Parts: sequence; structure tokens; C-alpha cells
Amino acid sequence: MILIDGKKIAAEIKEEIKNKISALVKEGKNTPGLVTILVGDDPGSQIYINNKGKACIEAGMRSVTERLSADTSEHDLLDLISYYNNNKDYHGILVQIPLPKHIDEAKVIEAISPEKDVDGFHPISIGNLVLGKDTFVSCTAAGIQELLKRYNIETSGKHVVVIGRSNIVGKPIANLLMQKNKYANAIVTVCHSAAKDLSQFTRTADILIAAIGKPGFVKEDMVKEGAVVIDVGINRIKDDNHPNGSRVVGDVDFPNVSKKASFITPVPGGVGLMTIAMLLKNTYKAYLKYGG
Amino acid sequence: MILIDGKKIAAEIKEEIKNKISALVKEGKNTPGLVTILVGDDPGSQIYINNKGKACIEAGMRSVTERLSADTSEHDLLDLISYYNNNKDYHGILVQIPLPKHIDEAKVIEAISPEKDVDGFHPISIGNLVLGKDTFVSCTAAGIQELLKRYNIETSGKHVVVIGRSNIVGKPIANLLMQKNKYANAIVTVCHSAAKDLSQFTRTADILIAAIGKPGFVKEDMVKEGAVVIDVGINRIKDDNHPNGSRVVGDVDFPNVSKKASFITPVPGGVGLMTIAMLLKNTYKAYLKYGG
Repeated sequence: MILIDGKKIAAEIKEEIKNKISALVKEGKNTPGLVTILVGDDPGSQIYINNKGKACIEAGMRSVTERLSADTSEHDLLDLISYYNNNKDYHGILVQIPLPKHIDEAKVIEAISPEKDVDGFHPISIGNLVLGKDTFVSCTAAGIQELLKRYNIETSGKHVVVIGRSNIVGKPIANLLMQKNKYANAIVTVCHSAAKDLSQFTRTADILIAAIGKPGFVKEDMVKEGAVVIDVGINRIKDDNHPNGSRVVGDVDFPNVSKKASFITPVPGGVGLMTIAMLLKNTYKAYLKYGG
Repeated sequence: MILIDGKKIAAEIKEEIKNKISALVKEGKNTPGLVTILVGDDPGSQIYINNKGKACIEAGMRSVTERLSADTSEHDLLDLISYYNNNKDYHGILVQIPLPKHIDEAKVIEAISPEKDVDGFHPISIGNLVLGKDTFVSCTAAGIQELLKRYNIETSGKHVVVIGRSNIVGKPIANLLMQKNKYANAIVTVCHSAAKDLSQFTRTADILIAAIGKPGFVKEDMVKEGAVVIDVGINRIKDDNHPNGSRVVGDVDFPNVSKKASFITPVPGGVGLMTIAMLLKNTYKAYLKYGG
């Protein structure tokens, strides 16, 4: 069994981008910039936003975080997005989800210029992904593909089974891996809670991607011997043996499933760390493509 | 075995739309209008365009066909689309595909206002389909769902296997049927030529959708007893016993597969006829939603 080291790969990607940006600076060019927008004070979102901003700075990008109060109006948020859509110093715009209930999330995402949609959540980005065009791919989905790529895991002709059909992970990774290209070309099944017996699908997977948000959901008997197992879950569970009374686990019962898998991602230290690395990659791409 | 009668269902839908439009006319309201644009003189495309125009008129819609010569420039075509984007009398714009090689098809499709994208080919329409939002769905994919609906074929929790991953059929029907709603909610597999053994996937299908364009490709031993079989193929093959030396067949070996299927669509007389009916439905929807 080979442990897929998301920490190592994410660090490699950040280093690659850092080097490219250093080269830009030496040439006296503008550097890529990302604006992150946080509405309200959800503690989880604050951590995410801080990590994203920090990663940008470490890579040599410009980064600004706009922190708006929880009662910010939709209109004001849209105004701010419009400002950054027209600001040439910022090539990527990320609005931290979830937004307060009085704001229409879809409307906000659609207000971001597709050229700056580094989260890959805009319908145009998703449509282009389905069509196989070069676009911004949701960071988690792109991160999964990148891990498979860097571990030389063949996807072509393989059966990929995705558990979960979220707009952020399940649907984009399914559409990404069914495309006709070298790093995809897989037979893809998307299964979910409507199935009477999920294991009937998961057991046929050469590559199993768990993205349902249920701690330890994928058990040993749901996995084929030698399968590649990608765990997207980030679930906090109570654990009195841990200093802060809880710990983070994935959607996969790692201790048991890892005995059967040929490759497996740990949680933490797997897919989660790739998300920020791909955000940097998308921002750098936005810079090259539209704003360099 | 029940034969799914696409001709009957398509006629029902046309009748329903016709009645709705009659009601509009009685109220003195504007009627829905569709413009179809044909570039060049491909005989197949001419037949399709004629049939579409004719169906509009029969349903009481306005319809105009713009016929442009094969050497029309991309610029002129884009200008014409822009004209109809701003024309309040036409609620749907359909550009017949394929276009001559000197014209960038993607650019043309993206030039159509998403509000008039009755073919459902615009990246925004596809993205919204993936996200589960109300949008224009590719007519063939929508037609398949409509057939399943009108024959009360349960899709929820069923395993749908789609053979083929085209942008026009395979990908949209897969994304449509995996959505969490009453007429979808299926476990969906998209398989294609990269699979070593396609039958390993097709044999597990409760609902098998063949959309690969290979005459009689799906054989009896590839289908589970009692499966629902939807044949999207329209292939013209040589047949000296037929008056014009050829006939149209689907992707399914109908005589043998129909013995095993619980429901099956014939070719011709199945999915193909639904496409135009759904085009009318999409045009009527565009009218109601954006232009009524």
C-alpha cells in the first residue's frame, strides 16, 4: 500500500508556483493577486480564509482579504465583486462559502467574472469543464486529478466510482475524469444515498472517491482488493483521547481500508491540502491567461 | 416488453404546446418565435432545419429560417446572432450544427444569449444543468427524461448506464439523471470506448442509454433481463431490400435486445422524434421565462 502524500505534493506545487512568480518579479512584471471575501465571522471560514491568504503570500502573490460583517447586504457584496472584477491587480476572486442566509449564493457566484473564477464554481466554468474546454476547475476536484497524475495512477479505461454528488466535489470530479484526455478517460459512476446498496457500486471501483461527509463511511467490505482510495471527507468527531476533545477523520475507515488499497489518501494530509495548492495554481493561471 | 412510442409522446407534447399557444393568441398576446440558422447546404442539416421550422408552425409559433451560404464569415454569423439576441419577437435561436470548418462552433454557441439557448448547448446552460438549476436542457437529453417520465419508469435509485460521452447526449443525460429530484436521482455510469469490456458495465444497467452512433452495437448479451433500453442512435445503413437502398437503425440490436427488455425505444419512432418536441418546449419556456 502506498500512502498518497498530499502534504508533499501540495508543497511541491506551491514551490513550483513560487519559482514562477520569482521569475516574474525578476523580469519586473506584475505579480498574480487573489482577493478573498469573507462575510460574517464563522470560525471555520475564518481559518480557511487565513490559510488561503497565507499560502498566497508564501508563494509570492499579492493577497487581500475583504472581511464584511454578517449583515452586509447582497447589494454591497455584489458591488465589491464588481469592483474587483474591474481591478487589474487581482486576477482571482474567491468568496468564502457558505454565505449568510439573506444573500443569494448563486447570484454572488454568477457575479464573479468567469475570468477570475478561481474557485471554478461559476456555471460557465462548470459548463466548460463538462465540454472538455480549458477552464477553472473546482480546486478539490483539480487536486484529486493532480494527485492521481503525480503518483502515475492510470485513469484511462479504469472504473472511477464517486460517492457523493455535491456541486463542489462529486459532480466536477466525475465530469473531469470522464473527459477524453490523458489524465482522465475513465468510466465514471456517481453513486449516492439513493442507492439501495452502495457497496454494489463501490466494490467495482478501480479508483474510489469518497465525498459524502460521513466519518468512516467506507468500510473494508465496500472496497475491491488493490483499489485506489481517495478520501475527500473532512469530518470532526469527538475523541476524548485528543487534547482538544476531537479529531478530524475522513469518509473512509482508514485503518481497515488501507490494508486492501493499493494507494490511499490519509485524512488529514491528503486531498484537503491540495485544495489551497490548486487555488494558487488557478490564480496563477488566471494571471497568465487574462491578466499577465 | 413495452414499446416506448416516441411518435405518440412527441405528438402529445406538440398538442399541449399548440393548445397553450392558442390560448395566448385568444388573449391577444404575442406568440413564441424560433429562428433557425443554417450555414451551407448539407442535405441532412436541411432536412433537420425544415422539420424544426415545420413543427414550429404546426404548433402555432412563429418561425423563420435564415439560410446563409457556406462561405459566410464567422463575423457575419455572429452579427446575425447578435441581431436575434436583441429581437423581441424571437425567443429561441438555434444554429444548426455542424458549421463549416472556418467557423469556430464554440464561439458561435457562446454568442447566443443564454436566455434564447433553446438547444441547451451554451456552457452556462450546461453548467446550470450540472448545478441542478432550472435551465435549457439539450433537446435529446430532455426528450429521454420526458419519455421515462411519461411511461412512469422509476429512475430514483436505479442504475442508469450511458454508453457514449458526447456533449450533446451522453454528458447532459448523465448529469440530468444524477440530480436529486423526482424524475432523476439515479446512480449514473458513463462508459465509452476506453473500457476494455463495455458489457461489464452495460449488463448492470436498470436503464441503458445507447448513444454512440454504431449500428446495432448493443447486443442481447450486453443487457440485463428486464432492463429499460433507450436507443439514441440514428445510423443509416445500406439495405438493398429497401426502396432507396438504405434504412435507418439505432445503436441497439433491436430484434434480439427487445426480447430481454422491459421497455425499449424503437429506431425510428423513438428518441429522435422527441428532439423536435423538446425544442418546441424549450422555445415555449424561453418565451414564458424571458419574453412573454
